[in-house]
Amino acid sequence: MSCPETIRLQCRKQILTSHTSGLAPGYLQANLLILPGDIAEDFSRLCARNPVPCPLLAVTDGTPKKLNSSILINADSDQGFDIRTDFPQYHIYYKGKLQSKANDCLKEWKDGYVGFLIGCSYSFENALIEAGVPPKNISEGRNVSMFKTNRIMDPAGIFIDCPYVVSMRPYKKECIAKVREVTAKYNLTHGEPIDWGFDGAARLGIENLQMPDYGDPIEFDADEIPVFWGCGVTPQLAVEKIGHLIEGPVVSHAPGSMLVLDVTYDEFNKYSTNSSM
Amino acid sequence: MSCPETIRLQCRKQILTSHTSGLAPGYLQANLLILPGDIAEDFSRLCARNPVPCPLLAVTDGTPKKLNSSILINADSDQGFDIRTDFPQYHIYYKGKLQSKANDCLKEWKDGYVGFLIGCSYSFENALIEAGVPPKNISEGRNVSMFKTNRIMDPAGIFIDCPYVVSMRPYKKECIAKVREVTAKYNLTHGEPIDWGFDGAARLGIENLQMPDYGDPIEFDADEIPVFWGCGVTPQLAVEKIGHLIEGPVVSHAPGSMLVLDVTYDEFNKYSTNSSM
Repeated sequence: MSCPETIRLQCRKQILTSHTSGLAPGYLQANLLILPGDIAEDFSRLCARNPVPCPLLAVTDGTPKKLNSSILINADSDQGFDIRTDFPQYHIYYKGKLQSKANDCLKEWKDGYVGFLIGCSYSFENALIEAGVPPKNISEGRNVSMFKTNRIMDPAGIFIDCPYVVSMRPYKKECIAKVREVTAKYNLTHGEPIDWGFDGAARLGIENLQMPDYGDPIEFDADEIPVFWGCGVTPQLAVEKIGHLIEGPVVSHAPGSMLVLDVTYDEFNKYSTNSSM
Repeated sequence: MSCPETIRLQCRKQILTSHTSGLAPGYLQANLLILPGDIAEDFSRLCARNPVPCPLLAVTDGTPKKLNSSILINADSDQGFDIRTDFPQYHIYYKGKLQSKANDCLKEWKDGYVGFLIGCSYSFENALIEAGVPPKNISEGRNVSMFKTNRIMDPAGIFIDCPYVVSMRPYKKECIAKVREVTAKYNLTHGEPIDWGFDGAARLGIENLQMPDYGDPIEFDADEIPVFWGCGVTPQLAVEKIGHLIEGPVVSHAPGSMLVLDVTYDEFNKYSTNSSM
């Protein structure tokens, strides 16, 4: 199952309802947030002001069936596109609390709602493997460890006092330069690490590296230190943080259950670079 | 003296050698950093990852006489343009230490060097006045107070552990919503405040609001609280922080002595928005 369009169709038919890790290798995958129109502008500015934890790839264009970036989903597809059905699984929030999980969000989408696609660090895990510094979560077949931190995003509108979530991968000290270099080019999917080392964990306010807030714990070898990247769960935590101010349902993807797009990271990066400045 | 081109020519002739506050009202003004080519890409990524303290407007295009954004300087000008002479005053750094001040940097510029123009908060001070919430530094005829903080930028390449500098303006609590709303649209010149209140000062690690690190102190009335914006001095502090790693001279503008550009904020913002996504 390697064709992005086929994967999206299987999600829509609710045949594929779990995670997308390892599917359609090389193709870009995206995190989701669907918000009421009256706070969409605030969230859009939150992303623009905090591109490391919240790298915005595209937004819906008036309808849930179209994006404002034509390269992400092939517009000539027979199957079309629908942001409300083409992820394997959705999380439905009310007032900032996760209320249910579902395989579509057709009834939650309302007039004026806007869907946001956010970059996902799956993109650079392949590059790390190819560079000879594979992430331990991949080689051990686990989900990556994710932590809430004390690093606060620059606020935008109602999004005040919203902290970064980070993903963590252990590496030997002598690999840090290589790991930074490899991931630096992935600026649309969090880019290089934001901090590293046990002193870095302390700076981020992470007390127990064996107790992740999301994902799986992972053990350290004696010569390994933690390396922290911005994480696409950050927007979900932002919704939890200020959810009491939001009227109506908010929808995200279920962690790990991503939208598989019709473009590779390199193609999209080239397109984005050429279409700005 | 209100024509940007005339102002730049007077800088070049070293007739104008002090600050540009209040000159050419409405026109965009820019902060400067000139760096050796081998760290220019790192700094460019630092800006992209931290657009609130380091909003990048343009870079030089191969020569100090041309920018990569044609709207900032009118290309049809008889007088031409030179980033090494068209600011009133420059600061010259070696190994991260301010070594001298000068009215041009012709001899410091070397092959491969890159000049960066960074947005300046002068742009939103006029808007605050027009909205009926004038900054106290303006009404009292003082320079704004600026502080080093404990908020660390997301790193890029050699730029590790570089803190935000903030500008501070006192406001009454009931004005905060208006002040946030007015400055939010100035996303190319720091945008809305990053924090506010005496608790905000504590979060940013600012201990004494009467002891600014740059600019003038300003007294608080009983009902006023501090409001903090990202500040264009941040790149200068970054150069001080990692300057020991830089070979050759680094040049910035002298604080307050800006480059006056041929475009208003609104024109440039419209152009930037239309030429991306």
